[in-house]
Amino acid sequence: MTDSQPLHEIDGPGVRVSFDSRGLITAVVQDAATRDVLMVAWMNAEALRLTQETGEAHFWSRSRAELWHKGATSGNIMRVREIRVDCDADTLLLLVDPAGPACHTGARTCFYRTLKDLTDTP
Amino acid sequence: MTDSQPLHEIDGPGVRVSFDSRGLITAVVQDAATRDVLMVAWMNAEALRLTQETGEAHFWSRSRAELWHKGATSGNIMRVREIRVDCDADTLLLLVDPAGPACHTGARTCFYRTLKDLTDTP
Repeated sequence: MTDSQPLHEIDGPGVRVSFDSRGLITAVVQDAATRDVLMVAWMNAEALRLTQETGEAHFWSRSRAELWHKGATSGNIMRVREIRVDCDADTLLLLVDPAGPACHTGARTCFYRTLKDLTDTP
Repeated sequence: MTDSQPLHEIDGPGVRVSFDSRGLITAVVQDAATRDVLMVAWMNAEALRLTQETGEAHFWSRSRAELWHKGATSGNIMRVREIRVDCDADTLLLLVDPAGPACHTGARTCFYRTLKDLTDTP
């Protein structure tokens, strides 16, 4: 995703991560074993730091405006095997081992619905 | 998919897709065959409509502020097998057959870099 100038950047080992004007970066979460895309969430620098430190996925909840340790209440934590960064360094891909359903609906993945066919008008 | 859980089909003309205040929705693109996450981009209603009509991925380029038919110049179009919607209906997942590398760098996926290990402090 290419956008306007990032406000701040973080240097990883050879990788500089770019946060947007709100200090956030998109994080795609993929099951490392099944390869299903489970969910898409947001991280700020603190969520990324906590994820790296603990090995468990942390996000930034935009609706609640607070750090969100995924699974802290449900028990469905996500062990993070690897974090990848895209070409523009403004999107992350987390490869995880989920302890349970990723979705608050109880579905294994948040992407449990499909447009019936490509000609459906949303 | 290795889904043990059946996908819910959308009733009626389609699901209501939520666009943000800019009229955009995040679109995660996954290779339908290899299951690699290839890229993350944005769509507006027109890009989604064109994708559904043509069966080829169209996006909205925020940097160029224009519709973007992926592969129109490079030849690396993406045939779209299926479009999924997440629980909040504010993120799309496109399952595609890419004609070539997804990334402008020539890499097969935009997520070709990894943070070296989870304990690295960015």
